[in-house]
Amino acid sequence: MNYKIVSNYLGKILLLESATMLPSLIMAIFADGLVPAVAFAVSMAVAAGAGLLLVFCFKPESRNIFSREGCVIVALSWVAISIFGAVPMTLSGAIPSFIDAVFETVSGFTTTGATILTDIESLPMSVLYWRSFTHWLGGMGVLIFLLALGPASRGSGMPFQIMRAESPTPTAGKLAPKLHLTARILYSIYLGLTVLQIVILICGGMPVFDAVTASFSTAGTGGFSIKNDSFASYSPFCQTTLAVFMLLFGVNFNIYFLLLMGEFRRVFKNSELRAYLAIIGVSVAAVTVNVLRFFGSAKEAFHHAFFQVVSIITTTGGTTLDYEPWPEFSHTVLLVLMVVGACAGSTGGGVKVSRIVMMWKAFRNEIKKLLHPHAVPTIEMDGEVIERSTLARCGVFFFIYMILVSLSTLLLSIEGCDLETNLSAVLACINNVGPGFGLVGPAMAYTCYSPVGKLLLALDMLIGRLGIFPILLLFAPSTWNARK
Amino acid sequence: MNYKIVSNYLGKILLLESATMLPSLIMAIFADGLVPAVAFAVSMAVAAGAGLLLVFCFKPESRNIFSREGCVIVALSWVAISIFGAVPMTLSGAIPSFIDAVFETVSGFTTTGATILTDIESLPMSVLYWRSFTHWLGGMGVLIFLLALGPASRGSGMPFQIMRAESPTPTAGKLAPKLHLTARILYSIYLGLTVLQIVILICGGMPVFDAVTASFSTAGTGGFSIKNDSFASYSPFCQTTLAVFMLLFGVNFNIYFLLLMGEFRRVFKNSELRAYLAIIGVSVAAVTVNVLRFFGSAKEAFHHAFFQVVSIITTTGGTTLDYEPWPEFSHTVLLVLMVVGACAGSTGGGVKVSRIVMMWKAFRNEIKKLLHPHAVPTIEMDGEVIERSTLARCGVFFFIYMILVSLSTLLLSIEGCDLETNLSAVLACINNVGPGFGLVGPAMAYTCYSPVGKLLLALDMLIGRLGIFPILLLFAPSTWNARK
Repeated sequence: MNYKIVSNYLGKILLLESATMLPSLIMAIFADGLVPAVAFAVSMAVAAGAGLLLVFCFKPESRNIFSREGCVIVALSWVAISIFGAVPMTLSGAIPSFIDAVFETVSGFTTTGATILTDIESLPMSVLYWRSFTHWLGGMGVLIFLLALGPASRGSGMPFQIMRAESPTPTAGKLAPKLHLTARILYSIYLGLTVLQIVILICGGMPVFDAVTASFSTAGTGGFSIKNDSFASYSPFCQTTLAVFMLLFGVNFNIYFLLLMGEFRRVFKNSELRAYLAIIGVSVAAVTVNVLRFFGSAKEAFHHAFFQVVSIITTTGGTTLDYEPWPEFSHTVLLVLMVVGACAGSTGGGVKVSRIVMMWKAFRNEIKKLLHPHAVPTIEMDGEVIERSTLARCGVFFFIYMILVSLSTLLLSIEGCDLETNLSAVLACINNVGPGFGLVGPAMAYTCYSPVGKLLLALDMLIGRLGIFPILLLFAPSTWNARK
Repeated sequence: MNYKIVSNYLGKILLLESATMLPSLIMAIFADGLVPAVAFAVSMAVAAGAGLLLVFCFKPESRNIFSREGCVIVALSWVAISIFGAVPMTLSGAIPSFIDAVFETVSGFTTTGATILTDIESLPMSVLYWRSFTHWLGGMGVLIFLLALGPASRGSGMPFQIMRAESPTPTAGKLAPKLHLTARILYSIYLGLTVLQIVILICGGMPVFDAVTASFSTAGTGGFSIKNDSFASYSPFCQTTLAVFMLLFGVNFNIYFLLLMGEFRRVFKNSELRAYLAIIGVSVAAVTVNVLRFFGSAKEAFHHAFFQVVSIITTTGGTTLDYEPWPEFSHTVLLVLMVVGACAGSTGGGVKVSRIVMMWKAFRNEIKKLLHPHAVPTIEMDGEVIERSTLARCGVFFFIYMILVSLSTLLLSIEGCDLETNLSAVLACINNVGPGFGLVGPAMAYTCYSPVGKLLLALDMLIGRLGIFPILLLFAPSTWNARK
């Protein structure tokens, strides 16, 4: 393990985090008064101090990064930004318990959107802004942000190993010959879509602060809102805008790159995109019919069904109403969509549609092999043959996913809540959705669990956001051996 | 598709089923009176008639069986014996609805043990016997029984393809050079253990009829009892005997063969057996501590924890008490054990311990590959290298398992029961366990679902018993093409 390069990256990430707190500090000075202002100033100083210490005390001799270092850098960076990002929440008095604040910050950066707050509107403006901004930064990835800022890299494999670890897609895409250019392209598309959304929302009559925070929240497919009722109080136009942009942010960003390059044919034939839209279409239709009797008109039923389905499949988790009273069928549809998740290479979480498409093709392949034992069929996706190692990794992913969900639900059950609450809490956290069912439903907060339960759920969020392997690697003893 | 050989096998299976109804007919004549006697006589005649028709009208020109024919023979045989096995239940008036009777018979042959009956003790003796006997026959497999009876096979690949399809193990074992000998060895061990259990139970004071039916039920890891309270009214000695034999029948039968051959070293080092016993040990300890306050002594808590844990992990499902009032943690342990299931090559269901051990090794392999990208580690189990194709199939198995559980739970939710009931009903059926939680708990019957819901659950039982692929193959259009 190249400890020095890991420390170096951790330091840079903390410096970056310190810098991103500046807008909150300014807001605190002008709008919130002394305590929040001091809280953000101290937090910035602490993060910057720790960052400078790590950057200047540990000068890496070799800048080579292998997949091991890439995973460890990403995993530890996410843990670090969550802990340092929680400091202003506690110092400002917004969330007195530091464990609660860490839960909230992990939930923010991982774009989960699960909250322990019961009265969100009482928070200072600067804290509300910081809370929503963590979604935006976490959505596309903090280390990818660092790469986008930095110059062309020296050393071998550095950005690729990090990018692959932070962007949990079965097949990491390369958009440009240099990876820092890929990172810049991704962040430009991300920023462009976010600005477009802010403008449309403001034109639709939403106050500027609401438009900015709601856009951060939906762009990162996070789900935090600055209102106690999530997105229920906004106009139908604004709600529809939010839903459409959630859907857009749940699409693989490579698709937008292809659109910019004019490759419409490849976009139209993309199997993940088609599956994603088909799942949304079928789910919206099924839920609309199922909840018809709760609304005055079919149009209204469709409006809310569309918002909730898109919000859950993109793992955003914001709501326009409390779906707890909806029938069991709609609940089960939403629960299944939580696991499905958005497209790979998007800001959404979950298992990812591409993994499902890939495994479905592998299943058809197995059936083919049973029918024609002497044929050796290959599995193709969008014209490319899927390697056996990718497939094996995907199979292992599903297995470990099942193990983690079972184990987490088992551990939570010690605290005594019912199965629906525990299972949906685990699924809502590991898939980075946010609200679940029962005691963690959309009208409730994650207040029913002990600090230990909350830390477990926070760990699930990190595991889910980083595609399982990087965080689990931290627990493998041989990760920490010296490099031979 | 070689239709003629399929029909031929189906015919033989129905003739076999007709013959196995004979003890019930005799019992009906001497103990139950006219209606059950006529019911069994008619059922035997119908099954035998259909069987003779199929055997003599479709003479196969070629006796070659490929994996496609093997799967179809197994899948259709199981459907056929379930439908013809349900006839005496309805004709005798024991279960008036034929769909309910089919559910009960599928539940019997697949050794699930889920029942739609609320008053079991009111059934005629002959029906009770038949119901328990379906467990015994289904446990080791009806087609393997046929192979064990038959002479050395002509044609190529015949018994192997069938055996592989009926015995859903990741790696089908060959115990003897000729496969009908393997089938005989398996059935001899099975019969020997069953007889031993009957003798011990009778010595322990259990009435002969109870001892025979309870042994059929636990040997097949089914779970049907002839009492309304499952196994609660038997003495602690008998209950412990039942639990120990359930544990034994959940072990891979190859282990007993190795024991008979004196290969104690290989038995001791068998990784699946060790994992199976470790999971049972840890689960019993955890549940005992968790339910301590429900019992007068630690010994009593251990007794019931041991019975319930072994009953669930072996997917038997018989109980010594209603575990609904137990704490949520114990419920979740039992729910996870339902999915784990018994060892491959045993009479138990579930995902199987060997698949979990295999995928765990694959996971460790992935971690190794992340740490040492240039190494190409292989996965070994009990000294044998696991092929990539076996691993891929196992990964696909977990994926399709998740899809089937999600889809079934989704479809059941249309009927309005709660998530705990629906999910545990699906898991209890697809893993061939029997009782679930909530409205399908151990003190309840599967009466909350409509006939359509019951047929869906019966399909899940068949899919689970036959290792997913054979039943799904029936739905693939190209299965039915003529052989090129």
